[in-house]
Amino acid sequence: MDHPAFCNSLAAIVGSANALTAPADMAPYLTDWRDRYEGKAWAVARPGDTTQVAAVMRLCQDFKVNVVPQGGNTGLCGAATPDNGRNLVLRLDRMNRIRDFDDVDAVLTVEAGCVLATIQEEAATRGYLFPMSLGAEGSCQIGGNIATNAGGTAVLRYGPMRDLVLGLEVVLADGSICDWLTPLRKNTTGYDLRQLFVGAEGTLGVITAACLKVFPSPVQRESAMVALADVEAALALLKHLRGQIGERLLSFEIMNKAQVDIVLEHMPGITWPMAQPTPWCVLIEVTDTLRSYDLRATLEALLGEALEAGIIDDAVLPASHQQQEALWRLRHNVSEANKRAGYGVSHDTAVPLRHQASFARRVAEGVERDFPDAQLLMVGHIGDGNIHAVIMLDPERYAAPGALNAAAAAINTLVDEATLSLGGTISAEHGIGQTNKARLIRGRGAADIRRMQAVKRALDPDGRMNPGKVFDLGAD
Amino acid sequence: MDHPAFCNSLAAIVGSANALTAPADMAPYLTDWRDRYEGKAWAVARPGDTTQVAAVMRLCQDFKVNVVPQGGNTGLCGAATPDNGRNLVLRLDRMNRIRDFDDVDAVLTVEAGCVLATIQEEAATRGYLFPMSLGAEGSCQIGGNIATNAGGTAVLRYGPMRDLVLGLEVVLADGSICDWLTPLRKNTTGYDLRQLFVGAEGTLGVITAACLKVFPSPVQRESAMVALADVEAALALLKHLRGQIGERLLSFEIMNKAQVDIVLEHMPGITWPMAQPTPWCVLIEVTDTLRSYDLRATLEALLGEALEAGIIDDAVLPASHQQQEALWRLRHNVSEANKRAGYGVSHDTAVPLRHQASFARRVAEGVERDFPDAQLLMVGHIGDGNIHAVIMLDPERYAAPGALNAAAAAINTLVDEATLSLGGTISAEHGIGQTNKARLIRGRGAADIRRMQAVKRALDPDGRMNPGKVFDLGAD
Repeated sequence: MDHPAFCNSLAAIVGSANALTAPADMAPYLTDWRDRYEGKAWAVARPGDTTQVAAVMRLCQDFKVNVVPQGGNTGLCGAATPDNGRNLVLRLDRMNRIRDFDDVDAVLTVEAGCVLATIQEEAATRGYLFPMSLGAEGSCQIGGNIATNAGGTAVLRYGPMRDLVLGLEVVLADGSICDWLTPLRKNTTGYDLRQLFVGAEGTLGVITAACLKVFPSPVQRESAMVALADVEAALALLKHLRGQIGERLLSFEIMNKAQVDIVLEHMPGITWPMAQPTPWCVLIEVTDTLRSYDLRATLEALLGEALEAGIIDDAVLPASHQQQEALWRLRHNVSEANKRAGYGVSHDTAVPLRHQASFARRVAEGVERDFPDAQLLMVGHIGDGNIHAVIMLDPERYAAPGALNAAAAAINTLVDEATLSLGGTISAEHGIGQTNKARLIRGRGAADIRRMQAVKRALDPDGRMNPGKVFDLGAD
Repeated sequence: MDHPAFCNSLAAIVGSANALTAPADMAPYLTDWRDRYEGKAWAVARPGDTTQVAAVMRLCQDFKVNVVPQGGNTGLCGAATPDNGRNLVLRLDRMNRIRDFDDVDAVLTVEAGCVLATIQEEAATRGYLFPMSLGAEGSCQIGGNIATNAGGTAVLRYGPMRDLVLGLEVVLADGSICDWLTPLRKNTTGYDLRQLFVGAEGTLGVITAACLKVFPSPVQRESAMVALADVEAALALLKHLRGQIGERLLSFEIMNKAQVDIVLEHMPGITWPMAQPTPWCVLIEVTDTLRSYDLRATLEALLGEALEAGIIDDAVLPASHQQQEALWRLRHNVSEANKRAGYGVSHDTAVPLRHQASFARRVAEGVERDFPDAQLLMVGHIGDGNIHAVIMLDPERYAAPGALNAAAAAINTLVDEATLSLGGTISAEHGIGQTNKARLIRGRGAADIRRMQAVKRALDPDGRMNPGKVFDLGAD
């Protein structure tokens, strides 16, 4: 009779409208965005403030219920989908208040359930920029962005989510509230425990609020689409630009022709801006807060030099804001296009920049050898060393039971071997969740997983925070 | 007979020349730079590589000897000075190799014993900038900079040490080597354990090497000394500049008149660049990698606007590199001048920028009320919210036994109360070490200290890494 008692107590804390227990009400929160996982829960709770989160955590402690924090449920690795145990899904969506803004400190304090796009708009309204930008920004929530150390298209200049977080408010499994909500940029008073929760995918505690860095709004913004022959050329261009325009370089995104074609095929209204197709292209964005010189002319001149030096084959600078947006739609629609295109085994690799070209070549050779019918898409934030290899399989060719999974596993091995032999990581920005758990041992090694388990036990001794995600707790 | 056996084994690992055991040989490493602490050690070891560090750590485990890592021994809080227990001081100074440089990734891989200035020069030789810069840069070592999450004068643009570290190599108390030496800018594969060691002051393990971010070298660099009336004016100027020159703003350093006077009095050859003294001054530095516009003219115009708006009283832009260096000598000689000037109770406060003026006022009022004979110096990185209040006491007035310590404790309480009531931190960049251990409870609170203790036990279960620093291990 634990379950009814739990649900009654939960309703008493968050209100019965926010304690979902009917299967139909819970269903949307028990599967992931890509429909790869499905789990079970005793209830889905939608607390309205941090005090309620703490009370819910204590309730779960009393009833030995595990807690699965869930933001916008847009993750790609199943980290926010419960397993089949005794779970509470903790939806943060009602905690969506902007708590504070200070324009001397240039800090925005927000609750975890704020949608990323809302935060971008809030900053813009006040004349500042919140630079985190990614495909799901219209529905992902900042708590999830922090818990997965999100990346996106502005990492090159502003860093990943970790670099944008100044303060955090976290509730631990025992219901204690860690008030680290500070706008301070410097604080050297022992261990920076906040850092553990960034990228922990909810396995150490629930992020309930954050102080975020905002930046002076750029007044000049220029983009360019560049056609080039290969990854080597992209890196030569990156070096050429970086040396002169430095941190003005906001985005440097690469796509191969197969990826561009998938977007053009599946997303109506998106067009290719050049007369000719190209084996590879790079989408560049540069910005500046200073008005007193011409950024467009600077970018044009640098690309002209690259063209003369034979580094690039062609470049298009959009003439209007609308044309600029159109270029970016091509990039931002990649995830949706790939989802529509069929079954993709998608990778989130980072390797050192110096090894990007080797990585692309090895994966292409391996896929051609072992999966000649597959299509290899390459897209990513190559300026950050992060390239997504997506291997599209035709599900009809893998109709036998288990065939698709076996193919995916073989592809993972192939890509992981290339990644790790080049000093890379199997997950640059998507995280581990459920999808990559078995592969984590390849990247981190057994000793490192034991260290993570020890840290997990220090902060969540009963192992009730998002169990079965990232790694399993050992017997130790 | 443990001690001789230990020393023999140590000599066998690092060579007898690098296993110091004679009191006279060990003496320089058993006291801190400010001569505030003195400790004991069984030996001082100078390992030559990471394998030797690991072997030394295993030896210490066998003999139950505690390990005190020590870099350049320039810290201000006694974190690198042993207590009176059974200690080994682990000097990293022989591990001073540049292991690798890659100009595609823009990453320099260095050993922990590299002197900061050497790293700056190494980067410069290759056309890049390593931006960490602080008074002790000629003798402090990068391992210590990382272990204390060093700040300095370029945090405003490039962040503190934490933001400059991409990879770390760490040896734990059990001798296991954590190979996190990666140039990757994105990696979301579970907990980022590296972050724990940044700022841990050697209490979790020994940092032996690091991958550091380097940046394109600026080709334009301009400074200005600005005279202004108060802290409010400094913040108004900061906002004015930040909105337009954005991340070109490298340094924004404040000093009050008393601090300027101390430097002028005690450091020969340093002069004040303006006709008149000023109650407060700000030293500004801006840089850019782009040559195609005039940064000096831009800065001059912005300061002209600030002068017209009545924000500032005067400004001097040096006309030559020599004049620029002279301005910076004024700032960089603060620590040395204050040391020569006598006994200072020095604080390393950060409060949110919005509260800087209140902080300065409260401290001034409190010091005037309780220590009318003392002199209040204020100097710091106000752009980062970090201001050092240094209260100079005349030791002759506090000659009675314990009187100086009692005065220092009263001053600490006064400053800490102002700091914490304004949401600040008692240590922005100097750390906790021994000096601030008793005060840590005020800043972090008991629950947070318990969390740190739990994390410490997870990684250093026997509590042998730099015991008695930052916090004591509880009985739990």
